[in-house]
Amino acid sequence: MSKFQPPRGTRDFLPDDMVRRRDVFEKIMDIFRRYGYGEVWTPAFEDFELLSKKSGPEIEEEIYSFKDKSGRKLGLKFDPTVPICRIVASNPSLQKPARFCYITNMWRYDRPGAGRWREFWQSGVELIGPMTPEADAEMLALVSDSLKAIGAKGFYFRISSRKIVDAFVREAGIPEKSTADVFRAIDKLDKIGESGVMAEMKSRGIKPSQADAFMDLIKSGKSGGPELDELKSIQATAKRMGVPNVEIDLSIVRGIDYYTGFVFETMVKGFEKLGSVASGGRYDKLIGIYSGNDVPATGYGMGIDRLLEIIPEKEAEPPVTVFVVPVKDEVKNDAIAITQVLRGRGVSTETEMMGRNIRKQLEYISKRGIPFAIIVGPSEVSAKKYTLRDMKTGKETKLSLDSIIRKLA
Amino acid sequence: MSKFQPPRGTRDFLPDDMVRRRDVFEKIMDIFRRYGYGEVWTPAFEDFELLSKKSGPEIEEEIYSFKDKSGRKLGLKFDPTVPICRIVASNPSLQKPARFCYITNMWRYDRPGAGRWREFWQSGVELIGPMTPEADAEMLALVSDSLKAIGAKGFYFRISSRKIVDAFVREAGIPEKSTADVFRAIDKLDKIGESGVMAEMKSRGIKPSQADAFMDLIKSGKSGGPELDELKSIQATAKRMGVPNVEIDLSIVRGIDYYTGFVFETMVKGFEKLGSVASGGRYDKLIGIYSGNDVPATGYGMGIDRLLEIIPEKEAEPPVTVFVVPVKDEVKNDAIAITQVLRGRGVSTETEMMGRNIRKQLEYISKRGIPFAIIVGPSEVSAKKYTLRDMKTGKETKLSLDSIIRKLA
Repeated sequence: MSKFQPPRGTRDFLPDDMVRRRDVFEKIMDIFRRYGYGEVWTPAFEDFELLSKKSGPEIEEEIYSFKDKSGRKLGLKFDPTVPICRIVASNPSLQKPARFCYITNMWRYDRPGAGRWREFWQSGVELIGPMTPEADAEMLALVSDSLKAIGAKGFYFRISSRKIVDAFVREAGIPEKSTADVFRAIDKLDKIGESGVMAEMKSRGIKPSQADAFMDLIKSGKSGGPELDELKSIQATAKRMGVPNVEIDLSIVRGIDYYTGFVFETMVKGFEKLGSVASGGRYDKLIGIYSGNDVPATGYGMGIDRLLEIIPEKEAEPPVTVFVVPVKDEVKNDAIAITQVLRGRGVSTETEMMGRNIRKQLEYISKRGIPFAIIVGPSEVSAKKYTLRDMKTGKETKLSLDSIIRKLA
Repeated sequence: MSKFQPPRGTRDFLPDDMVRRRDVFEKIMDIFRRYGYGEVWTPAFEDFELLSKKSGPEIEEEIYSFKDKSGRKLGLKFDPTVPICRIVASNPSLQKPARFCYITNMWRYDRPGAGRWREFWQSGVELIGPMTPEADAEMLALVSDSLKAIGAKGFYFRISSRKIVDAFVREAGIPEKSTADVFRAIDKLDKIGESGVMAEMKSRGIKPSQADAFMDLIKSGKSGGPELDELKSIQATAKRMGVPNVEIDLSIVRGIDYYTGFVFETMVKGFEKLGSVASGGRYDKLIGIYSGNDVPATGYGMGIDRLLEIIPEKEAEPPVTVFVVPVKDEVKNDAIAITQVLRGRGVSTETEMMGRNIRKQLEYISKRGIPFAIIVGPSEVSAKKYTLRDMKTGKETKLSLDSIIRKLA
């Protein structure tokens, strides 16, 4: 019966799930609004050339790519930063700073696992223009306020700088062309530990003495110089913005190629094995790849699917506020009219349309968890007073429609 | 420079566009909520077999389809009804009636044109369970209330029944296997006129005498029988629900194969050439194709892209409420602190982070249309009173931060 299932790695969301997701989306969007970010939407697919321009053709292994009917090679969006850079590159007159945010689904061809889906949701921002520590600190403040808004607790940030780690690579005598290999290895430190990282570096052709020297530099945390001062400045600004939980950890590099300086991860205590729930950094050279003119930029993405595993579940809301029960067929039209008045006044309302008797209707109301019923019979219609039943307590009150609306709206 | 553009037939939406779209989405979602509909979300792609099961393999010409890396044939979602039927078919214990709604993007490989996009947005509902005229009338009431909520005017409905048109096909002596051809031809009546429809029927192998007989039946509107009574009952119920603008028009069939009875279109006066802005009908046999058990159902889809061309534009909202201006570098941290307090109290706020002087900051504030500025200098900081400038009038007031928040929040 596989045809009844969504494709591997994807999910259906039914109303209870969607209520929870929309609630998280709205809370995050409200934080974006407070910080002055405007939502952008880019298509589900992009020209493959655009997607591969920075990540290289090997990205094809990790994404959904296909040709359309006129032979155009396309790929499903797996990263929102590249399409937003396309927009910035094609709008040179865009006012800076530009603050863009998004909450969107994306796709990657990945082995599905805990919190890893082939259709996944991400919220995030791109801040285009400023090159200052304040801009990078704003990323941490946005993540912090978003996480607080949705009820996440015990999170902390690890920040680092690509420039410092680049310098470590050079200092350890590792050839520049191996930098990406080193980054890919060190990015797995949490998962595979120090010995795993060392083994991976060696398997990628890095000399044991160089790998040792590199690991020593990372652990020493010694760097000095303007890059470490910059990280300290980001840390201090974040603290001033209400984000005290920021550690400098030079083992953080983030896997994505395009970062040029500041990078960060967000861990949640007790959920470290889920990995980072929000990550990002500075990418001052990415827009220039498309437009020829570099524009400083910083940003992050926050995985919604993982977060939903971390934050506390709220009590499910009732699907509808009230059900209007016609006690017999002759008052069906009165029930419809009452239903429409309630809906017109903003009350979430259903009425009977399957010809069920009053007992069956009340059974349905209970099963669905609808908190109120309005009983409509011929005597109620002529008196213009209807019986409002509280389904939890069983208490019934005779009320005018206006009084019912005041109670339920 | 084609790589800077979104793929053919797709669009980027920048913040001004998205504010307008989100406003429409929220208004429509509020109508869905009032009627007791719960949002469902299905993946962007489905197994091609599922998509083609009803529409036939020829649907491949009209959609984006591709194989994933394990050889699975997939297609991008072009119709939300089929995935929702998949959900219903795989959940036999689902309580009926089930009221599902969606607002989602979808994709079709279509020649782009006025209001026709390869990535397009649709809102709609599926009402699963009831087989009554009340259920079909609810579709018209939902469309009507949604259109009113977003400010559309001058719309009206045309309703028909597949059963009646099926009977006309038989009565005209047209072989049953040609029914789909007849439907495809008559569906274009608005676009190509009566003579065009006649020519198309003939080109599809229908005898001229049969085509003539069929057109006469459509135009006569004579049908009688329970099917016409049912349409009249839907019309009367819709009127009772506040939807008086419903015409019975038997030339309406809707192109999609799965309808089994009631079908409808929504036209907007003055925009007839855009075609129907919301269409749907009853599909009592579609769920059974997947599950083996027929479940009555009715629904519709409303194209958001066309609607946005029809409804009046609202005045653009300012992107941010207030900008905090540090007059010199030594008060930068005070400006950041004030900004964070404002954001924490719900006010959309930006501050300077590009090192611009006060004149350049004020220029930026004007250009972006930010309505207020807070001027922060050393004397303001020590007095704890800040200058609030109304950017429109130029009026300045010295106020405490609390007073500013009361004014702006």
